Order: sequence, then structure tokens, then C-alpha cells
Amino acid sequence: MIPTFSYAAPAASAPLAPYRFERREPRDTDVVIEILYCGVCHSDLHTVRDEWGAGEYPIVPGHEIVGRVLRTGKAVTKFKQGDLAGVGCMVDSCRECANCQEDLEQFCLKGATFTYASKDRVDGTPTQGGYSTHIVVDEAFVLRVSDKLDLAAVAPLLCAGITTYSPLKHWKVGKGSKVGVIGLGGLGHMALKFAHAFGAQVVQFTTSPSKREDALRLGADEVVLSNDPEQMTQHAGSFDFILDTVSAPHDLNVYLQMLKRDGTMTLVGVPDAPPTVAAGSLIFGRRALAGSLIGGIAETQEMLDFCAEHGIVSDIEQIRMQDINEAYERMLKSDVKYRFVIDMASLRDAA
Amino acid sequence: MIPTFSYAAPAASAPLAPYRFERREPRDTDVVIEILYCGVCHSDLHTVRDEWGAGEYPIVPGHEIVGRVLRTGKAVTKFKQGDLAGVGCMVDSCRECANCQEDLEQFCLKGATFTYASKDRVDGTPTQGGYSTHIVVDEAFVLRVSDKLDLAAVAPLLCAGITTYSPLKHWKVGKGSKVGVIGLGGLGHMALKFAHAFGAQVVQFTTSPSKREDALRLGADEVVLSNDPEQMTQHAGSFDFILDTVSAPHDLNVYLQMLKRDGTMTLVGVPDAPPTVAAGSLIFGRRALAGSLIGGIAETQEMLDFCAEHGIVSDIEQIRMQDINEAYERMLKSDVKYRFVIDMASLRDAA
Repeated sequence: MIPTFSYAAPAASAPLAPYRFERREPRDTDVVIEILYCGVCHSDLHTVRDEWGAGEYPIVPGHEIVGRVLRTGKAVTKFKQGDLAGVGCMVDSCRECANCQEDLEQFCLKGATFTYASKDRVDGTPTQGGYSTHIVVDEAFVLRVSDKLDLAAVAPLLCAGITTYSPLKHWKVGKGSKVGVIGLGGLGHMALKFAHAFGAQVVQFTTSPSKREDALRLGADEVVLSNDPEQMTQHAGSFDFILDTVSAPHDLNVYLQMLKRDGTMTLVGVPDAPPTVAAGSLIFGRRALAGSLIGGIAETQEMLDFCAEHGIVSDIEQIRMQDINEAYERMLKSDVKYRFVIDMASLRDAA
Repeated sequence: MIPTFSYAAPAASAPLAPYRFERREPRDTDVVIEILYCGVCHSDLHTVRDEWGAGEYPIVPGHEIVGRVLRTGKAVTKFKQGDLAGVGCMVDSCRECANCQEDLEQFCLKGATFTYASKDRVDGTPTQGGYSTHIVVDEAFVLRVSDKLDLAAVAPLLCAGITTYSPLKHWKVGKGSKVGVIGLGGLGHMALKFAHAFGAQVVQFTTSPSKREDALRLGADEVVLSNDPEQMTQHAGSFDFILDTVSAPHDLNVYLQMLKRDGTMTLVGVPDAPPTVAAGSLIFGRRALAGSLIGGIAETQEMLDFCAEHGIVSDIEQIRMQDINEAYERMLKSDVKYRFVIDMASLRDAA
């Protein structure tokens, strides 16, 4: 067994605290990874605070993992000791259903095994995430990571990156597209970078004039204040695609009106309360409101390779593991540009 | 000028009553049509009762029009005296915008001219619909009608028909598709006929067990009681496409759960209150909720030709013009199988 030091939530109401446990000995197709960096995603917070349904504590969150391979199971072919490796939101799936067969494991019809707060498909033990010194994952769910990029800034690509890359690709954003991004946070800032890299005309929607400069630096061609009716009217009916990265409650209908005929607006955040949708916004323009969930393993690899080729990483603020509870409070106030990443050396040093 | 006898709403609160007015002399590209039949659409009722915003009274409703050409303007090439002709929801559009250029006049960026309660683009007079003995329409917005079908039963194809045909085509329903239809009324029964004719596996959703036999006769392969959780669970995640023809308030989310990954549910009715949409229903399956509005003129012609080829018409109950107010009350109770059609001989005889 592999002694592992981590930070875990002991209960929904308790702050994260040091937690020691053991990872399994690698199975034949497993990769043992020493974690170097782990991004801090809003989902981590939702999960440890039990806002998404019954969790089994302690929970070690974290699904934006970059590390180095320590050793491998005897049947592993993709990785060898010393390789860089990434792990995202999933560590397994049934691999047999129609969706898995189409490389869309996130929609596994039997339910994907998520990186934390899931059950291992072999032994039923709870999966534990990346706020830890080590993780053991089947090689089919481990990503190759280029050494060309800043590894800390690569970590958020494993969730924030793929969550925005995948819908932009699926809805064919590229040269000639006009695309809007709602929200400028961990997801939104990655959407700007990708949409810009794909050659689209990119517009940032925001209610904060103060975000203008950053949005332009990150890839927006234009910034529209969504609470200024005049600016909104100027852009009405002009977008091919809008990516809505905001999970706080907000009115979707003003943005649906921004879409061209046959345009799509896609949600990647789940608001606490279900939004209302004016049917007329959809009908008078044959528009669609859709959703998208991370991306499959093959597409996640494609995204990482694209990032290596185009020099794309997340804008991050590094923190020590010991500062996670304060980081959560700041994240709740959107006080981060644009993703916290835990330097796992801080945990190893304390172990 | 062409003396025209009609039934019109004199005000939002008043029943329809006889109304005499004059249609314009045909312009060069106009067709003068003697109306034989006009279908009764729920939109007629919404409009005359001023439920969709400020109307200018009197209003002559009716946009499911079949008739015979009486005479033509001198530049008309598509029609000659004696031809059968149809008019649907639109009588004009800008013809220049991107949507018009793509034969999607219903999405005309300057606003299509609707058959009633719109303004004529040339002289600004209010358009008046098909509950009348005659209508004068530019040939570009007049449809060819086959003499192979029962003309009274053809009339509802001009709105109920194209409103269901167009989304089924747009979302590529055909052999190998599993398609659901919500609601079995004027629109729903046409959706069953078309989806069946396209070779799809067709499921009728209904809350009324009494509709089962009719649904099967009209083209459904199966009927699912949407208020029976067991039946719904059996079909969860199995539909490629669902057409929602119900405009009364209802929960969309139970149906969104019926869609496969990447499936689309399309609304063609505008509920009085905007529905709520659980974002998770869209995100966990990359599903879409969309809307569709009638169809363009070219597609309406395609639909009429398809119906002539496949012997498809609406199931109708013929009424006299004098019975329209009673028919409205019955329509409000869904007491019609499945569309009222006014025999305009009743109006000519009374004139």
C-alpha cells in the first residue's frame, strides 16, 4: 500500500484538515503518480460542503492533478517511471456502453467513476482526489503532459480547460464564428483563451467594467456590459455560440436574445435554482439552450496537446496546501485570478 | 377593390361577428384567391383575444387557407385562374436579409408580414386573414396545392403541418430515430403522421390513457403515460428527438431526461409562463432544448408536395363560419379531433 498524506473534509461543516490514508497497490494497468500540483475547482467546495448530495466523509477533493509517475503496474504501456502525468475529473468508467465506446466517458451510461466522492469499480472503496501526495489511477484515465509548459498552470486544464474546450469544439467555434463568454472566472478565462486560439471573434459578457482590461488581455476582442441595455441591443441576434460559465443565478433570456438564428447557448455550470427560459427566445430564432460536461479522455488529451502546441495555460495563483480553507473563502468571493493551484511540495514538506 | 365578407373580432372581449371589407386590387405579382377552407388554429384565438400583445381591431384571423385562384396580377407566373392555392402564416417578408435569402422567411430580420394582425409592407394597411371569402397575396407567398387530397383536410397543413414537419426535418428525424411527441392535438397528431412517414420509431407521450388508440392509429408505435414514473423510467435516455407541442404549462425536465446524449427537445408552443429548466438535465447528457417556428415558404411547399405524395392530411371536423365562437370554446377544452376547418361556402352562402 502507498502511504498518502492529504487534506480532507472530515465532515460537511468542518474545514479541510490533514488526513493520512493509504492508496492501493497498483493493479496491472495502474499508474502511481506523485502529485506535484492540484488546481482548486468550485466543485471541490460544493462536494466537501455536501451541496450536491450525500457524501461519505472524509472526502479528499481535487481533480486538476499534475504529477510524475513513480511506478507502474506490469501491464502499463503508456507510461513509465519519471513521465509527467495528469488526472482530471474521472478515473474510470464502464468502457463498454455506447457513450464510452464513443470516447465520451463523462456520459458513461453506468456512471463514470469520478476522481473523488465516487466508488472504485473494482473494490468499492471511495475514490479520493488530488489534494494529496499520491494517486493511483488506471492508465486509461491518465493523461500525458508536456514538459513545455508551466506545470502548475497546466493543472487547471484538467477540469476548467476541458470543460470549456469541449463545448467550443463540439459547437464548431472557429474562424468566422462570433462567440460570447459569460463570466470571467476559472472557466471563463480559459474559454477566452481557447475561443481566441480557434480564430473566433470573441466577446466577453460581464457586469464588471473592471474586468475589461483582463478580458482583452486573455483573448476577448470586445467586452460587453450585460447590464447596459444599449450595448446588449447592439449585439442582439449576432452570436453563433455563447458559453455560459456562471453558476450563480442569472437571467438566461437576455443572452438567448444575443444568438443568431440557429445559435446555441451552452451551460457548463449548474445553478442552485433552475433558471426560467422564455420559450419565445428559443422559438423565434430556432435557438437552442444546451449543456456540456467536461470532456472525454481522448478529447482531454487532444486539449492538452493543443495547449502544449499553442502555449496555453491557466492564469493561476499558487497556494500552499495549508492555505486551502482561506482559498475557499476567497474563491467564494471570486477573489482569484483565475485559479488557485496547490503546490503539493507544501504537503510533502509537512509530511 | 374586392368586396370581402368575413368574420372578425371587433374587440378583444367580443365574439367574432360578420364583417365586410375590401381587399386590394391585385398588384402585378399578386394572386386573388377565393377561399374554400380555412383551418382554426389556437393562434387565431390568442390573437383575437389580445393575449399576445396589442392588436388593432377588427381582426380577421385565419392562416390555414386553401382556395382557388380567381385572377392574377400581370406579372404572376406561378399561378393562373382556376389553380388551387394555399396561404399559411406569412404573406410577405423583406426578401433580402440573410434569413430570407436562406428561405427562412419566418425569421426575417426585419420581421415577416404575417397573414393577419400585421401591416402590409407596401401600403401599411392591416393584414386580414382567412376567415373570409377572398384574400390577395403576393405569389411568392402562395403555395401550390395538389388536387389529389381532400382540400378541407389540407388546410391545417399550412400551419399545424409545417410547424411539425419543419423541426422533424431540421433535427433529421428518420429511419433509425426514436422520436417522442408531447401532446396529441392539432400539432401533435400531425407530428405523429410525419414522424411515422419519415420512418422513425414514434412514441406518443400523453397523460390521457383514452388517447392511446388514436395515437396508434395516427402513427405512434407506442404510447407512454408521462404521469406513470415506471413507464417513463423505462424510456429514460432513449430518445434522439422530442417535439413538444403543448403550450399549457408543464414540466419540461421529465421529458429532457428521456433524451439520449446529444438529443434535442424542441418547443413549438409558447407557454404563458416561462418554464424552468434544470441545468443538470442539459449538462449531464449534452442535451439541448430548442424552439422552432413554422417553416419557410420553400419548405412549406416541400411539405405540401410530400403530403400529396404520401396521402397525408389533417384529421378534421368541418364547421360553418357561423359556428366559430362555439368552436373556440370547444378548442379551449381540446374537444376537437384534431382541427376545426371552416367550410367557407357557409360564408359565401350567407353573403
